[in-house]
Amino acid sequence: MTTKALPLLEPEIAAACCPPLTERPLTAEEAERTAVMFKALGDPVRLRLFSAVASHESGEACVCDISDVGVSQPTVSHHLKKLKDAGLLSSERRGTWVYYRVEPAVLAAMGALLARAGGA
Amino acid sequence: MTTKALPLLEPEIAAACCPPLTERPLTAEEAERTAVMFKALGDPVRLRLFSAVASHESGEACVCDISDVGVSQPTVSHHLKKLKDAGLLSSERRGTWVYYRVEPAVLAAMGALLARAGGA
Repeated sequence: MTTKALPLLEPEIAAACCPPLTERPLTAEEAERTAVMFKALGDPVRLRLFSAVASHESGEACVCDISDVGVSQPTVSHHLKKLKDAGLLSSERRGTWVYYRVEPAVLAAMGALLARAGGA
Repeated sequence: MTTKALPLLEPEIAAACCPPLTERPLTAEEAERTAVMFKALGDPVRLRLFSAVASHESGEACVCDISDVGVSQPTVSHHLKKLKDAGLLSSERRGTWVYYRVEPAVLAAMGALLARAGGA
């Protein structure tokens, strides 16, 4: 009884992808994959929703928890779906609500992309 | 392909902005500022150009160094300008060419945003 859509980007793939941006030029294929994640966070409302989910107690939240970003609930759901399609959130339906959770591996992979080459 | 300009973002402002996304929900203003940086990297060509500059020897590159991403030189220049407007690159004209350099503070700030709250 789940409405799960096929994600465009599997967390494992994202996590496996790509050295730090400062290490070597990304290939076209790497850039295609990685841009999806950055693009998903490149919208102020999505970024607020993402941080609302990421910082919510127990690391997950439903639409009912995070609807105070000044847009309608359908719009919230729409943006949460985009974050999910980009592999940044996973979701699970429990009763009335769909609960969203941050994919830590993807967050870590994005952080690693932005690290300085050679560590630190 | 949009011709919309990304808002200007000063490196100092970007670097000062915002706790990790997992710490607390971003405010509307913080999200507006921060989304600009993610949006700039949310395009495969810009991401390749950014990594080409970031990984180029001496940490800077001119259009002449990084034009092998399969788009025309004017398009390269256009995307480099967007990265600059987002505060991710700085530029300096020397002779015929404009040289681009990564703003390390901005890269660090973006990395910090994606870090897990509470370190690690």
